[in-house]
Amino acid sequence: MKVDGKDWRTIWVERLPAEGEGGAVGIIDQTKLPHRLETITLSTLDDAAVAISDMLVRGAPLIGATAAYGVALALRDDASDARLSSAYDTLYATRPTAVNLRWALDEMLGLLKPLRHAEREAAAWKRAGEIANDDVAINRQIGETGLELIRSIAATKKPGEKVNILTHCNAGWLATVDWGTATAPIYRAHEEGIDIHVWVDETRPRNQGAYLTAWELGKAGVDHHLIVDNTGGHLMQHGMVDLVIVGTDRTTASGDVCNKIGTYLKALAAHDNDVPFYVALPSSTIDFTIDSGFDIPIEERSGREVSIVGGITAEGTIVEVQISPTDTPTANYAFDVTPARLVTGLITERGLVSADRAAIAERFQDRIGNAA
Amino acid sequence: MKVDGKDWRTIWVERLPAEGEGGAVGIIDQTKLPHRLETITLSTLDDAAVAISDMLVRGAPLIGATAAYGVALALRDDASDARLSSAYDTLYATRPTAVNLRWALDEMLGLLKPLRHAEREAAAWKRAGEIANDDVAINRQIGETGLELIRSIAATKKPGEKVNILTHCNAGWLATVDWGTATAPIYRAHEEGIDIHVWVDETRPRNQGAYLTAWELGKAGVDHHLIVDNTGGHLMQHGMVDLVIVGTDRTTASGDVCNKIGTYLKALAAHDNDVPFYVALPSSTIDFTIDSGFDIPIEERSGREVSIVGGITAEGTIVEVQISPTDTPTANYAFDVTPARLVTGLITERGLVSADRAAIAERFQDRIGNAA
Repeated sequence: MKVDGKDWRTIWVERLPAEGEGGAVGIIDQTKLPHRLETITLSTLDDAAVAISDMLVRGAPLIGATAAYGVALALRDDASDARLSSAYDTLYATRPTAVNLRWALDEMLGLLKPLRHAEREAAAWKRAGEIANDDVAINRQIGETGLELIRSIAATKKPGEKVNILTHCNAGWLATVDWGTATAPIYRAHEEGIDIHVWVDETRPRNQGAYLTAWELGKAGVDHHLIVDNTGGHLMQHGMVDLVIVGTDRTTASGDVCNKIGTYLKALAAHDNDVPFYVALPSSTIDFTIDSGFDIPIEERSGREVSIVGGITAEGTIVEVQISPTDTPTANYAFDVTPARLVTGLITERGLVSADRAAIAERFQDRIGNAA
Repeated sequence: MKVDGKDWRTIWVERLPAEGEGGAVGIIDQTKLPHRLETITLSTLDDAAVAISDMLVRGAPLIGATAAYGVALALRDDASDARLSSAYDTLYATRPTAVNLRWALDEMLGLLKPLRHAEREAAAWKRAGEIANDDVAINRQIGETGLELIRSIAATKKPGEKVNILTHCNAGWLATVDWGTATAPIYRAHEEGIDIHVWVDETRPRNQGAYLTAWELGKAGVDHHLIVDNTGGHLMQHGMVDLVIVGTDRTTASGDVCNKIGTYLKALAAHDNDVPFYVALPSSTIDFTIDSGFDIPIEERSGREVSIVGGITAEGTIVEVQISPTDTPTANYAFDVTPARLVTGLITERGLVSADRAAIAERFQDRIGNAA
């Protein structure tokens, strides 16, 4: 996507391996956003592993692509089975609960293992590039599906009226290789010149909306306002939201949607005010092995994320501050589950799909049996 | 309430006026909480006005009490009609939308105007004390009403199981002279030895839950966890909340509840999960001149409250940090309206009342005609 007019992806090849020289990959250091846009070069397996574990890159598709390139980087001087296996283990250990990470590593291992050692490095770079490009193509397609929804709402507006979209967390291009999932329809609509405005939930406790989504939209020139997570219900009561689009970490065979904590509250408000509530997702995040969303274990994260907030002082120093009393206990559930009954539809790379078992099974028959 | 075992109120008389010496009032400087507990002495009208306008004191009942003492302080050397009138104007201008402020000032003016000048100062101190004590008595009574609800839930629990209460914002003793409104039942239950646990919403953007409610409960020894505002729905889906108790800034004749932004989202989640949702209020906050909550104008506050967060660094310095990109536009609606249909009941100083027009009218017949 555009940053001040220039095209960016979240990960790119800086140099393919050549005679006597290893390859290198560039990434945006997302821990510095929104205050600084800094890039980093990954030249080794360890660089890639640290980028994932320290969350310089985050978002399931981007983690997958980074891991794939990490395997390619690992094979520079040693393309043995032992090296392949240790690269897999090192990268897998960075964020073991990230579903796309495992998928990308399995994909790389499955491809490379049967090859001769001498062929492995080049094949790894090629496949990593394909994984990145496939993500871009899928998200672009999600954008096309969602664009039609936005276009049909725009058609009901008077001249000068904007289509108001609310989103939660960052399912933006920064979480993927490009386009994002929830944001892909937004960027496509913006490209098409449709007059849109986005309400950006700040998304406590990690503030991905304030740090990342607000930054993305601002840099791309998409009209938006940052709001606290408490605000969406009020906006919907007053006709100020035309549709909600969120991403998902995992959607079940029955259409239950696991996403960032607080998504369920927005879905309730949308339902109470007849606002359509859409979930944008690549079909790879549908987990056909789970039926009810309530069978998905919900990660509990460090309470520090609740009590400590990062930001920049008036003097330009990036610091962390504690907002609560020192001895206050905190609880930090990372995700919640929105039942399928509250979901208007799934925006996928294969078009719009109802959030119900039969519709999902029909559209994704070839994928049944997949774990997300 | 207790702070580390010692009894406190939010405002107290340090010295009544005596021969040659003016009176003085003590307050907690709430802008320093939760990081520092500092008290300040108010000796003049201006001290009281600044305490209100700079939000050293906040919360409708506490603002009212402070204004009443402010009138008393104003009369030290000059108890003329002109002085009375200018004191009224100075204090009224501090936070003109605060309903209790106007009520307290009208109360003082009505009492003092007919008196001889020489009698006014003493009468003002007496009436200000009564206003403060009346607030304490009403909140204590709200506590009794809510205690019965908590007791009945506790009776259904197995040994060792706690009653889990979720609250939003700070309707605690810091917002009143003592006890608070939403917290009064909690403190009474704690006094009675009922095993309770409170989920404290941090309450963005002003973080009154993180700054004040968490501090209050910690100092009083009430078991609690601070959570982000996004969390309540997940907790209710998993049976981790037995009841919700919130305060209100204004409740209409039909039982619609205007309260801190985000309250409506919790009410929706409570309704969706059959969790009782209660609103604790002194009947003075029922506005019989308004029927629908949607006729209450919703204050829009500075966007800085969304983008800037205050806290304390690891080195112990209290600072403000910007969390969003510098140029990100923000929107900041301070309150929302929870429709009566989502409210299980009103916890008042006259017992539990259904949130419907007939029940409210019957219980508060003598007050109909009052604006909140």
